[in-house]
Formats: sequence, structure tokens, C-alpha cells
Amino acid sequence: MNTLIQNLQSTWHQEIPISAAMGIEIVEFTGDEFAVQAALTPNVNVHGTGFAGSLYAICALTGWGMIWLQLQSAGIDGSIVMSEGHIEYIKPVREKIVCRCHFDANAQRDNLSRLAKFGSCEIQAASIITARGEEAVEFDGVYSVRLRQG
Amino acid sequence: MNTLIQNLQSTWHQEIPISAAMGIEIVEFTGDEFAVQAALTPNVNVHGTGFAGSLYAICALTGWGMIWLQLQSAGIDGSIVMSEGHIEYIKPVREKIVCRCHFDANAQRDNLSRLAKFGSCEIQAASIITARGEEAVEFDGVYSVRLRQG
Repeated sequence: MNTLIQNLQSTWHQEIPISAAMGIEIVEFTGDEFAVQAALTPNVNVHGTGFAGSLYAICALTGWGMIWLQLQSAGIDGSIVMSEGHIEYIKPVREKIVCRCHFDANAQRDNLSRLAKFGSCEIQAASIITARGEEAVEFDGVYSVRLRQG
Repeated sequence: MNTLIQNLQSTWHQEIPISAAMGIEIVEFTGDEFAVQAALTPNVNVHGTGFAGSLYAICALTGWGMIWLQLQSAGIDGSIVMSEGHIEYIKPVREKIVCRCHFDANAQRDNLSRLAKFGSCEIQAASIITARGEEAVEFDGVYSVRLRQG
């Protein structure tokens, strides 16, 4: 695990304590793919499956983390705040929760230009949780990004 | 706090362990109003305000709890599963998180009839978190309800 990823996971666990209670861990970051996981046990619901609130929180953090990684990789010091989220629960999750987010740099080029030019932009990030190889959760988040004053 | 409310809070803390980690507590249930609270500290984010994932989880549970309370009050043994959620973060929450859900029995009458007749229905529940007296979070959830076989 490289330093960037270690920094992100430490930031989450230290500054967002519920992410540590959920056992959220980073699996990998390849530049345009980012994967995060959490054991089912701390995130279980009354049905013995993934709790809707935990599934959302993991998706929301995966999207936030992907944007944070993109900014850090580009040397941009930005503040990321979630402004909207939508989630569909398609199938119950009965196993380790694994969430994946894809970043389409081409699709985001205009947003990142806007950030550089005007100091702020909105970035959408979509995450998916699969269970037994099938899509179980679909998430779309909208994040407001602002350049920090140097 | 009456028995129904105590049962709900015990169920949450025992069967949804992350709700105990979030410190979620029931404030009151008046029949058509249900309020839930949680301290900010376990639910804080990197900005020192309410973490988007916690705010969503509290709203989702408040909606779920409101439907559970309606079913229990009507003597119905039903299973409640969340199928969709949408949330808007309007203002940051810098204080104790208080979430309120209103149940409009007239608007839900058709859904509850469908549940009795066909054994299943969908129920929408909207929750709001206010901060310093202003709306900070708006949440809409869709829940699938099924009668349990007796």
C-alpha cells in the first residue's frame, strides 16, 4: 500500500471515527479504479445482511476518497464536501462488503478546469457494491470541491 | 420511554451494531412524529461537522423505525427492507444530530391496505435534520414491506 493510500486510510480512521468502527479498509487504487472493503459483522442489520446506512456510508466514502486521490495525484489542495447522494439497493449483501468507484478523467476534465479557473466545481462519483458477482448496490454522489487558499 | 420505543432501540443497538457505535437514541414517538438523535462526536467528519454517511444512516434508520412503529402499533408483523434512498446536504451539522420523520396515515392508507391484501407494499418515508433551527439535511427513503408468515 503506497503512502497516498495509507494517508487516506489514516485520515478516515482518525478524522471520521465511524469509518474505523465500520472497519473500512482500502483495497486498491489504480489511478482510475478505487476499491474499498469492510467486514459484514460490524455493518450487519436485523436481517443479517449489510445495513443500508453502512452500505451508503461506504459508497459515499469511496466516492469522496476517489476524488481526494485524484486531487492529491494532481497536486491540488482541495476541500471535498458531499452535497447529494442517491442509492438503490438491488440485492442484499451477505458477504464482505466491497465497493468500487471508477473515475473517468476525460469526463471530468471540464470540472477540473473549472476548479482551477474559478476555485470550485461539482464532481459526480458513482460507486457499485457487488455481491456473489452481481450488482447489489448502485450509488451516485455529488461532491462540491473547493480549492483551499494556500 | 414506553416499551415499544425501548424494544426498537434495543433491536437497533443489538442487531445493527453500527447504530450503537453512532450513539443513536430515540427521542420521542407521538404516533405521527418520530425523532431520533445522536451525538456529533462519533459521527464527525474531516471538517468537524456531521459525516455524510452517518447523517444518511440516521435518516434511513429514522424512516425504518417510523414504519416499524406504525406496523407494531397496528399489530402487523412485517419485514422492512430499504430499496432506495435520496439525500440532500443543505447545510453542515455542527451540533447534536436530531432527525425527525412525519408519518401521514391518510397518505399511507392505500399502501397499508395493499400490505393487508397482497402481503407486500412500498412505503416512502421522508426525514429531516435541522441545525441551528434551519433545514440541514433532507432525506427520502423507499422501503419494501412484507407481511411475515405467522
